[in-house]
Amino acid sequence: MSTGTLLYAQSGGVTAVINASASAVIEAARERGVTVLAARNGILGALREELLDTSSLSADQVRALAHTPGGAFGSCRVKLKSLDADRAKYERLLEVFRAHDVRWFLYNGGNDSADTALKVSQLAASSGYDLRCVGVPKTVDNDLALTDCCPGFGSAAKYTAVSVLEAALDVAAMADTSTKVFVYEVMGRHAGWLAAAGGLAGNGPDSAPHLILFPEIAFDEAKFLDRVRETVARVGYCVVVVSEGLKGPDGKFLAESAGSVDAFGHSQLGGVGPAIAATVKDKLGVKVHWTVPDYLQRSARHLASKTDLDQALAVGRAAVEYALDGQNGVMPVIERLSDSPYQWRVVSAPLSNIANHEKKMPPEFITADGYGITDACRRYLEPLIHGEAPPPYRANGLPDYLTVVLAQVPKRLPAFE
Amino acid sequence: MSTGTLLYAQSGGVTAVINASASAVIEAARERGVTVLAARNGILGALREELLDTSSLSADQVRALAHTPGGAFGSCRVKLKSLDADRAKYERLLEVFRAHDVRWFLYNGGNDSADTALKVSQLAASSGYDLRCVGVPKTVDNDLALTDCCPGFGSAAKYTAVSVLEAALDVAAMADTSTKVFVYEVMGRHAGWLAAAGGLAGNGPDSAPHLILFPEIAFDEAKFLDRVRETVARVGYCVVVVSEGLKGPDGKFLAESAGSVDAFGHSQLGGVGPAIAATVKDKLGVKVHWTVPDYLQRSARHLASKTDLDQALAVGRAAVEYALDGQNGVMPVIERLSDSPYQWRVVSAPLSNIANHEKKMPPEFITADGYGITDACRRYLEPLIHGEAPPPYRANGLPDYLTVVLAQVPKRLPAFE
Repeated sequence: MSTGTLLYAQSGGVTAVINASASAVIEAARERGVTVLAARNGILGALREELLDTSSLSADQVRALAHTPGGAFGSCRVKLKSLDADRAKYERLLEVFRAHDVRWFLYNGGNDSADTALKVSQLAASSGYDLRCVGVPKTVDNDLALTDCCPGFGSAAKYTAVSVLEAALDVAAMADTSTKVFVYEVMGRHAGWLAAAGGLAGNGPDSAPHLILFPEIAFDEAKFLDRVRETVARVGYCVVVVSEGLKGPDGKFLAESAGSVDAFGHSQLGGVGPAIAATVKDKLGVKVHWTVPDYLQRSARHLASKTDLDQALAVGRAAVEYALDGQNGVMPVIERLSDSPYQWRVVSAPLSNIANHEKKMPPEFITADGYGITDACRRYLEPLIHGEAPPPYRANGLPDYLTVVLAQVPKRLPAFE
Repeated sequence: MSTGTLLYAQSGGVTAVINASASAVIEAARERGVTVLAARNGILGALREELLDTSSLSADQVRALAHTPGGAFGSCRVKLKSLDADRAKYERLLEVFRAHDVRWFLYNGGNDSADTALKVSQLAASSGYDLRCVGVPKTVDNDLALTDCCPGFGSAAKYTAVSVLEAALDVAAMADTSTKVFVYEVMGRHAGWLAAAGGLAGNGPDSAPHLILFPEIAFDEAKFLDRVRETVARVGYCVVVVSEGLKGPDGKFLAESAGSVDAFGHSQLGGVGPAIAATVKDKLGVKVHWTVPDYLQRSARHLASKTDLDQALAVGRAAVEYALDGQNGVMPVIERLSDSPYQWRVVSAPLSNIANHEKKMPPEFITADGYGITDACRRYLEPLIHGEAPPPYRANGLPDYLTVVLAQVPKRLPAFE
């Protein structure tokens, strides 16, 4: 297996540094003399035979890719079902791989993508097509199993911690005659990692954020309102970080709106921040403000964590090495060697142990009262937001992000579906 | 008038660089051997005789103040009425000034603060107390008269342009199977300056943001939805920037909630972004997302504009020089000398021509269709977001913002109210 092309695809929600992994993949493959094709819009591009040739990217452009947020080749929210249920699609993928001599498939995503990559590798093996499938980890939710942390999370965490800190200084300055309670909504459907990252903004009982509402802890309105009232009385104001995935005592999402579901059948969330703020305003009668940063928190490349960037680059490079060296059905993951000084390395882990698992916050990361992060949590999180890696800026005041239109490789197969 | 103290107070909503003006005030006054007192929570601190002594700040701390967002001494939303209506308060201010030998009063704020500073200077003159009142401009709304731009705006504008650009890259990457329309809500109660700044994120008909909803243009739902539909069909997605101050054809704020007013009697806004997003979802049936950055946009010191920072420092320094050199009832403002290369200087302007005026966007800055910014607007805005001025960061990944508790000067008067 000395010839062939490498296919790289992005999957699921993009991050501030997923393109850094892409950049590392292209660089590492070029060093080994291997051509990288990129699927347009993730697995959809592979099914549709919409393959972009990255060969035309200059070395400078490949480097610029590493400081550009979004997903340069397009990503998608599409999950393949089981081999039996979606056999035609899996067969099609193999057909496209054969047509373009794809011998290495790198899938950059979260839980669902690990599952897809695993199934593709199994089908290839059973049908005798020589293919190496390697996952590349990515998710701002930080909920992948086996890896100590997920590329993309550190930058979203840094954005969250810095933004909570800055907004809290604003609130503190105005609280005497203006906003008393400020509510900051973070992403994180089932795991409170980003909510916890908000906790890095302060340290000590009176420093913001004063209360964190985790998806792991059922929301108790009366208890919460008591704590808000106490905090305003003691500190003069109260900053609340709330996870979009906050659930009530009945286990239902507080923000759930009936009938609104995404392609995976997950409820489409958003709006728990304003809902909590409205509750505070109505029940306590104080002036409130709220923010929902939404996509800003996962695309803020201008505030990327250097640790996160380094790890995104490292897993991209490792994935290429694993694949070209013959590993199959694996994912490069981050292993933490020590907290302080923070040391880590990349190791190979089987996709079968990652696919469809979900890593929640360990209970010992949340304080006994349920509203804060413990020192253990802080020791885990702080290294992940360490260091800055700002993009270069143009004379017009904006970051110099890469914008490039890649040529599509001519199709060799009939259209699919 | 060779002795006396200088009193500095912050007013209204804080910005990413109002503390830079404070820093420059303290530095410039120290160079002239003058002690700076800072009122706690703006004019309230002056009324309550809560005066902080800045003498204990080290030179390093004064410099650190210039890279710290929020309002270091506290600000407030309190507006004094006319001399007749609020005479007791104005008299009290003079009493406090006399008790602490305050001979120079610098008030750092927007329209309302210019009005207060003007009235204080008039009362002092009529009562024979030797006092110099000088305003220091500040507002993210950019709506002060006479000055070419307002310190605080450039950084909020840079935050907005960069955030719209980054979120748009995220939306573009996912649009094929996920969010088609993204709505970004900006501040700006009556003037669309920050909405216009969002327009800097892109240039050209198909680059985001595709539609800007200005407070200056009455919202036409049918026309707007047509444009969204067309844009999604042509580009694949649509990014909308909407001002919190968007009004309907009846002239009422779209986000107005009955009975919710702030201390100035203004309606408390917020929520027009989600409302526009919901309209798009219901009428066009596409997946939408929205963001309301709220205070993040005016406190994001980590993404300050270097131009804005330089101007915030320059007006702080100039205010001290004007006051110590005997000017009264004036404000240092920015005069633009040329667009390209961008050149500016600080000049003295009478507070009487600034107080209670409001500078709207000139009609020639909005495109004929009402949804975009013109080249003239771009020429005006671009220099204001030029350059970066990041704060230093700590090992814990957070900006090294100044946190200091200043001692209060002992009170010499009975309590007021």
